[in-house]
Amino acid sequence: MSGSENLGTWVDGVRCDSVPADDRGLAYGDGLFETLLVREGRPRFLFDHLARLTAGCTRLRIPLVTVREMRADIDAAVALAPSLAVLKILVTRGSAVRRGYAPGGAETPRPIISLWKAAPLPSRPDGVKLVLASLRVADQPALAGIKHLNRLENVLAARQAQEAGAFEALILGTDDRLVSGAMSNLFIVKSGEIRTPFVDRAGVAGVMRGIVLRECAALGLTACEEHLTLEDLFAADGVFITNARLGVVPVGRVGEHAFPMNEVASRLAAHIETLDA
Amino acid sequence: MSGSENLGTWVDGVRCDSVPADDRGLAYGDGLFETLLVREGRPRFLFDHLARLTAGCTRLRIPLVTVREMRADIDAAVALAPSLAVLKILVTRGSAVRRGYAPGGAETPRPIISLWKAAPLPSRPDGVKLVLASLRVADQPALAGIKHLNRLENVLAARQAQEAGAFEALILGTDDRLVSGAMSNLFIVKSGEIRTPFVDRAGVAGVMRGIVLRECAALGLTACEEHLTLEDLFAADGVFITNARLGVVPVGRVGEHAFPMNEVASRLAAHIETLDA
Repeated sequence: MSGSENLGTWVDGVRCDSVPADDRGLAYGDGLFETLLVREGRPRFLFDHLARLTAGCTRLRIPLVTVREMRADIDAAVALAPSLAVLKILVTRGSAVRRGYAPGGAETPRPIISLWKAAPLPSRPDGVKLVLASLRVADQPALAGIKHLNRLENVLAARQAQEAGAFEALILGTDDRLVSGAMSNLFIVKSGEIRTPFVDRAGVAGVMRGIVLRECAALGLTACEEHLTLEDLFAADGVFITNARLGVVPVGRVGEHAFPMNEVASRLAAHIETLDA
Repeated sequence: MSGSENLGTWVDGVRCDSVPADDRGLAYGDGLFETLLVREGRPRFLFDHLARLTAGCTRLRIPLVTVREMRADIDAAVALAPSLAVLKILVTRGSAVRRGYAPGGAETPRPIISLWKAAPLPSRPDGVKLVLASLRVADQPALAGIKHLNRLENVLAARQAQEAGAFEALILGTDDRLVSGAMSNLFIVKSGEIRTPFVDRAGVAGVMRGIVLRECAALGLTACEEHLTLEDLFAADGVFITNARLGVVPVGRVGEHAFPMNEVASRLAAHIETLDA
């Protein structure tokens, strides 16, 4: 890929650049993935990512690829990492054992581990710009929260952001509630308290989102999940987005609305940077 | 696959059983597919399938793989077909040219053609049994109608049918409206008229569904799309489901509710069987 060089891929425990064509991940998006930042040879928050992957496998009833099995590939990938890299861990239900949507039950889950060169993030003192996605993300409680491979809604919203020259697209769900960004979770700061939308009907429970919610206490901050609307957003004292690759990123604008830079976001970003996960 | 033998796969125009691991179809379900019945060496309704694939590519803005390019692979596959086979035509946006959800724009679409042995369908004089899916399919007008690769909802519903010993799962959308089966479209017959749910908010516009709507006139039948509920279903004189592999299949039961066999379904099935598409 231009702009992001592949440094190695492991499929079913073997270094290899291709996947059997009968994989159910390709056929139906029947699988899950994680994207981690690898810094100075250390995959950041690896156990949080593996915990979410496990939760996703449980939800989809994909027999769990044991951490031990994948761990050898992950270690092999990380051993090749330059000072900054991105590690992708993808698990599919495996090759189909019968035709059609229903799993046969005897599939062997397929881990696909890949390592990518990453560039340091540019400094953005005024925060990033978000555009409001024209697409509403659909409510699907059966799939909400987990990072499965059915990501066309994210693809469509991310393309809109790209075409608008924005860093990210902000996605609403039904009932006009805020859900997340296309590739990130959303947080607002109001009167010193931190709030993020629920992800039980749509959206992904981002690992960095979980870390922010968890680490707020260490900074004496209050954080909670809440039903949030655009009205709440525009009344916020500060807004930031999070993902595993980017960490905590302050938002300077959503469409034409400007937000002040808020010290809560920068305190959180600095604190999380120092965590040795 | 057990029960359904692969007779050949073509990837990027070459006979090959694997797909590059950086394909966006695998990463995000960023692609579309068609499943055709091949009978006595003829792919049934090929042009209808290619038309829907084209419409799907247009919707997702996947640059169209020309029919001519794919036609050579399709011909090669069909040449190997026994008297009954299933042809799968899958098109992804191709290998990623950059990291992340937004397409880079310079991807080369990837056709993946595969041929599978098929068995004749068993005779079911009393119709098939459907179970009501516990999952509601989400409303997503941006993706409704096209046969994209984000099919986890279908996977979950089909698994429920399988576990219940049912032939198919009947899926409701929001507002308690009927949408479709997990792998089929739904039709009800009432007072000699044929109705099928809209698929503009959820569901797939099945090729066989389109053929039924089109061919009704030839049999002097009236057919239309309509907002339908479970109440409409249970008040029906007859119910049938359709897909490209199965054709027109009468429904004998949905849960505990039994439906009479209706001669409209068998007339349609017989008529469509004779079409030389």
